[in-house]
Order: sequence, then C-alpha cells, then structure tokens
Amino acid sequence: MIVNYTDLIQKIKKTTVLKPLSGTLSGHATGEPFDKHVYAEIKKQFPVNTFRQYEYLNDLYSKNPDVIGFDARQKLVDSPTVLFLLSRGKNATDKWSLENPFEEKQNDTADIIVVYNDFYELIDIKTRNISKSAQPPNIISAYKLAQLCARMIDNKEFDNFTVNYFEIDWVLVKDKLVCEDAHYACLFNANPVDLYINWAAAMQIQFHVCDLDQSFKGTREQWAKDYLSHFVNQAKKRADNMIEKFVKPFEKYIK
Amino acid sequence: MIVNYTDLIQKIKKTTVLKPLSGTLSGHATGEPFDKHVYAEIKKQFPVNTFRQYEYLNDLYSKNPDVIGFDARQKLVDSPTVLFLLSRGKNATDKWSLENPFEEKQNDTADIIVVYNDFYELIDIKTRNISKSAQPPNIISAYKLAQLCARMIDNKEFDNFTVNYFEIDWVLVKDKLVCEDAHYACLFNANPVDLYINWAAAMQIQFHVCDLDQSFKGTREQWAKDYLSHFVNQAKKRADNMIEKFVKPFEKYIK
Repeated sequence: MIVNYTDLIQKIKKTTVLKPLSGTLSGHATGEPFDKHVYAEIKKQFPVNTFRQYEYLNDLYSKNPDVIGFDARQKLVDSPTVLFLLSRGKNATDKWSLENPFEEKQNDTADIIVVYNDFYELIDIKTRNISKSAQPPNIISAYKLAQLCARMIDNKEFDNFTVNYFEIDWVLVKDKLVCEDAHYACLFNANPVDLYINWAAAMQIQFHVCDLDQSFKGTREQWAKDYLSHFVNQAKKRADNMIEKFVKPFEKYIK
Repeated sequence: MIVNYTDLIQKIKKTTVLKPLSGTLSGHATGEPFDKHVYAEIKKQFPVNTFRQYEYLNDLYSKNPDVIGFDARQKLVDSPTVLFLLSRGKNATDKWSLENPFEEKQNDTADIIVVYNDFYELIDIKTRNISKSAQPPNIISAYKLAQLCARMIDNKEFDNFTVNYFEIDWVLVKDKLVCEDAHYACLFNANPVDLYINWAAAMQIQFHVCDLDQSFKGTREQWAKDYLSHFVNQAKKRADNMIEKFVKPFEKYIK
C-alpha cells in the first residue's frame, strides 16, 4: 500500500466543495468535486506517481509512440493482470493516437492510480449523501472480478497491485457540500464469500465502503480462489432461482 | 383505444418546451416537460377521464374514504389485472390517507391513464434526444409483464385495458427543446416473441417505440400465452448462459 489513508482522511474531513449547479443531489455527479479534491491531495503526496486512469494510459502510450495497435500496447505494462483492469477495449486502443487520446470514462475501473516501484494502487472514490439513506453503490462487476482472480492465478500475480475504495460522506450546508467523514477499505481485506452480488443490476458487487468487513487474513492467492468459489456458487444459485421464479410459475400457461 | 394518437402526434409535432435548467441532456429528466405537455393535450381531449397514475389512485381512494387498508382498497377497482399494474405496494397503500396522498413516482407503470366506460388506457411517454444515438430505453420489467399476462389469463381479462407507448423525438435548438417527430405503438400489437429482454438491466424489456413492430394479428389471449412462452424460453436460456459463461470457465480454479 502506497497511500497513507489515515492521513488522507484527516486532510479531507471537514473540507467543502461548491454544490454543482446542475443535477439532483442524489446523482453520481454531485460528489464529483470531492473526487477531484481527493485526487489533488494524493497528488500532493505522490506528484509524479498519481494518475487518473485515462491519464495513465495516455502517458504510457505517449512515451511509446512507436508502439501502435492493441496487441503491442497490451505488452507495454509488464503485468497482464493490472492491464486487464486498466486498459480500454481493442477498438479504442487501436484508435488511440497523440491527437486522439483517451478522455475520462465513467465506467473505468479506478478513479485514481498510484504507481510506485512497479506496484499499482487502484483507488475508486465513492461519494455519499449521508442525509439520505441509499442502497449501497455499484463497486465492480462480479464477472470482471472473477476474470481478474483467474488472471491473478494464471499469471501468479498476487503482490504487485491492490484495489482500494475511499468513501466520502457529505451533507449539503447552504450551497456547499461538507465532508462529514471519510472511510477507506481494501477489497482484498474483505472476506470474499461475504461480497453481495446484485445480478439484476448488471452483476455489480455492492457495498458501502464504511461497512466493508476487513478481517480477511489469508493470502491473496487464497482470496482469489475463495472469491471464484463464491462467484461460481452464486451464479449457480442465481440460475436455479431464475428457473424457480421465472420458469416454473408460468409453465402451466404454456401448451 | 380511447385516445386519437394521429391527432395527438399532429398537436405535439414542432412544439417546443424550455430546456430544463438542471441535469444533463441525456438524462431522463430532460424530456419531462414534453411528458407534461402530452398530458395536457390528452386532458383537453378527455378532461374528466385523464389522470396521472398517482392522481388516479388518489382520486379513487378519496372518493371512498371509508375504505381503508390495502386489501379493501384492492377491491375498489373491479379489474384485478389493471389493479396489478396501477396499485402501489401494500405498505404505501395501507398508509394512504387524505392527508398523506401519493406523489408521482418514477417507476410507476404509466405516465398517463385515460379511463372511459370501464376501459383503461395506460400511456407511457418516452422522450428521446435524436441528436444522440442511444440504447433503446427501459419499457417495462419482463417479469412484471409475465405476471400481468398470467393474471389476464387467470381472470379472463383481455378487453378492458391496453398499454400504449408514445415517443417524442426532440432536438435542442438554443435554449429550447423542439419536438421533431412523435410515434405511437401499442404493446399488444407487437409480436411478443420478438420483445428483447435485457436480463442484466433489471430484466427490462427495451425498445424504441418508433421501431416496434405492430403486426401481431392474434387475440389478446394468444398474445398473453405467446409472451409467457417467450419469457419462459428466454429465462431458461439466460439460466443456461449463466452456467456456460459464469460457472464453467472458473470451475478449474476451485478445489
């Protein structure tokens, strides 16, 4: 772990950002100024090592202007597992050029990447209006995480990256959003078998960062295997439930 | 069918509404002023018969102040099938009172209801920014529609209601949204076996109203049976696909 989150929480707590002019107060966009604020704070700690995900890819491809096309650009990062998390699709990567760089995309895996001594720390910021009770947010596709775990095992990559979440709890005070509290959690410190998969919501894993159990003590390899076992069990269960709920009750109407 | 849609399309085409002050131009909220506009036009045609869905329920419960609680209120509409589409949940219905009426809810089945001679015409408005290409919108939960079809068959209710969709195609011109075109389609005139179910997006049926085939010639009873057959087949297929895609590739990692 590169970033000092205890320090970061202290820096962010009680800070304010202006309320965005457009959008409702429940939407994703509301907390976005805080995301930029956290980025700025981490960049103070690690000026040359901190990137937005699209910045990292733009930076990497710009430094290697002779390497062209998806396949060649895939090899620029020496970690296939990290690359799976970071890279854009084949078509977008083929089309990348200095004149046509990537822009920020809402469904990128991470908001912030800190790269230090070949270690990749991915950080996703979750902002939360704590004056409303809300469902836990989408964290990552359960399927993408399963593919990631398979790659970790295939490539024996267990120690060169991590995935962290940072939650900012805010309230609206006049025309400002005030950060009341902040929380940090590491995905791989959570017990994988307790992760909730919302199959109907695009198979997203959902949790509030502040509620994420952090008691997993096994190795990263064990985590990957435990998660895959959980994912497979949940997928089987979901498939069975679909037959029970969506097939059986309606069969009597069909000749 | 009560409403004259050909007439309505003529009335709505080329009309303008002010661009909403907040929100992005892709969001659901952008076209909302058009929804109110269509409602006003239909209300001109049928002043005492046109309701917003929540208005209809508030009106019905207000006229029957002695009928209290979910079960009793369920019996106020003589059509159990229509009631399934219109009513709110048990808890919300139990709590309803003159002092605590329903407010508009985004996931209500219909935007507008026209009731005439015990026939219920449900109308859902879909607004579309035609300067952007976009995925077809969510229409209705495929599961809810399956439950509806089962009720239609159970209660032999085939001729006392319909479900229509009205699409408004708009473009932004300066600070105004201009309706370039409008389209109408009846759900039950579409061939049910062609309806696309997006299982990952909360099992929503998705289509653009202007693209909806309207060639179904069978009875409403046949429609309900054909849809149920389609829904059951698609649910089985989705369950099988889940095993193929989410279980089998990962089994080798699990001891």
